[in-house]
Amino acid sequence: MLTALGGGVGAAKFLEGLSNVIGNEQLNVIVNTGDDIKLGGLNISPDVDTIIYRLSGVVDRKKGWGLEGDTFNFLNSLKRFGLETWFNIGDQDIATHIYRTHLKSKGFSATQIASRIAKAFGLADNISVLPMTDHDVETWIQTNEGEMHFQEYLVKKKMKPEVCRVTVRDIDQASAAPGVVDSIENARAIIVCPSNPIISIGPILQVKGIRDALKKTKAQVIAISPLVGGVPLKGPADRLMRGLGLEVSSAQIARLYSEFLDTMVIDLEDAHENQAIVDLGLKTLVVDTVMSDKEKASILASSVLELI
Amino acid sequence: MLTALGGGVGAAKFLEGLSNVIGNEQLNVIVNTGDDIKLGGLNISPDVDTIIYRLSGVVDRKKGWGLEGDTFNFLNSLKRFGLETWFNIGDQDIATHIYRTHLKSKGFSATQIASRIAKAFGLADNISVLPMTDHDVETWIQTNEGEMHFQEYLVKKKMKPEVCRVTVRDIDQASAAPGVVDSIENARAIIVCPSNPIISIGPILQVKGIRDALKKTKAQVIAISPLVGGVPLKGPADRLMRGLGLEVSSAQIARLYSEFLDTMVIDLEDAHENQAIVDLGLKTLVVDTVMSDKEKASILASSVLELI
Repeated sequence: MLTALGGGVGAAKFLEGLSNVIGNEQLNVIVNTGDDIKLGGLNISPDVDTIIYRLSGVVDRKKGWGLEGDTFNFLNSLKRFGLETWFNIGDQDIATHIYRTHLKSKGFSATQIASRIAKAFGLADNISVLPMTDHDVETWIQTNEGEMHFQEYLVKKKMKPEVCRVTVRDIDQASAAPGVVDSIENARAIIVCPSNPIISIGPILQVKGIRDALKKTKAQVIAISPLVGGVPLKGPADRLMRGLGLEVSSAQIARLYSEFLDTMVIDLEDAHENQAIVDLGLKTLVVDTVMSDKEKASILASSVLELI
Repeated sequence: MLTALGGGVGAAKFLEGLSNVIGNEQLNVIVNTGDDIKLGGLNISPDVDTIIYRLSGVVDRKKGWGLEGDTFNFLNSLKRFGLETWFNIGDQDIATHIYRTHLKSKGFSATQIASRIAKAFGLADNISVLPMTDHDVETWIQTNEGEMHFQEYLVKKKMKPEVCRVTVRDIDQASAAPGVVDSIENARAIIVCPSNPIISIGPILQVKGIRDALKKTKAQVIAISPLVGGVPLKGPADRLMRGLGLEVSSAQIARLYSEFLDTMVIDLEDAHENQAIVDLGLKTLVVDTVMSDKEKASILASSVLELI
């Protein structure tokens, strides 16, 4: 049994590669839910959906999120009601959000909902998508333009405001969802996906019970840096790290994870950081981490598996 | 000020004609909400939407309901979740339902919601679409295949089951929505649209205060029969009337309304019923009531206005 921690597009790409090379081995994916947002009364869980869509082969590969071939007539129509339309919801995609909202209103937990959505999309039986917590949490960003939901910062404001603080609202009431701690304690290895350390992995580590389980587990913990040549291929990891006064480097990410990390995987372009990470007492693997297609994601996943 | 009572497609067609010939005169439309249904967590109000869509010029004229040029990708996508898909919701149309559901969850009344939706679609300022009540009611049909929501009988079961009883659930708790009684008392004329007398007009008349207001008002009350040659042009009026042991005729509809009715408008094909209606002490108008296009609807509306 393998367990992974991850957020959105980068994690989804890596997990697709991983799922191609693990055969029938059980893979548990603990997914960030700090990105969750309620818009127009709909419960949206972007990271959970991005991972399910990718792993069930229906993702829009060009965008990295949403459903392949989706249309946007609903979103256009929403404009006349003065509702927010900056968050891109496709016409097929909205069925997922309506299903989630419907189940949530009937008392189903995030875990139960993710499991049903995964099943509806035909996700392989050996893969479990586990929201990090069943409690409602939301990641908010304090910026020079005020405080806003992370999605607003990312999508509406296109990452332009300067970040000074990141807060996961209600995280102190959030305990790990069923199966999460178990899947960390009993895995043969834990893989921290190439996701944003602040906004994707950060909230997961703040959930009660998860960091402790990572520290205690006998499994090897391997993290893949989302940085290539010191910058993220996508998303605001560098802006967020800089905004919080952190050095933007894979070594810095290793430091954030050092309490529980065994091995850090970094890109060839960042080979010069290798020594700094070794100096933290960690093992390293320096490989090509750019997942420009499915095959390259599978090769990266294979290299990671060889570490175990 | 004119006031109309109506249900779905037939009423909408007539009201479109009426709106074309009244200039800037205020028109209040009291709309049946017994057809309302909650599906997949969405609050849907078919008659209210059909009338707003028609009167704001965005209706799918071929179908008589929904939005012109709409797509159905959402509905197709819903299938994978095992949710009911027999109710046709277009991708643009769903924005209306999400807006309604969102406002309802925030405590807005059906009246407030209809007013906002009408405004969003640019409905003319002199037309008010008034849901008959702000209370949640639902029309259920007892049939030889069991009891079911009217929409299920109409859309899913295609009006095939034999009807034995019609019940508007929670109607005894429903009082007239704000403005409804007032618009009956103070109108210069009341027009009962060519709608199903059992399923569209019936629920309106059962709302506390409405039948009394119709009996008391000094305004002339004119009803247009939905039957042409003894059968409805659309919908199950004949099946429902027969199922309830009623004669299927315009004279029978006049009898159902006789407590408050002054004038009955019937189709040329039903001229033989004229005497039976006159015998009830009512005035009659025998004209072509088939509204095959906008112009014919306007001509019918003009004929009705001439009665006042």
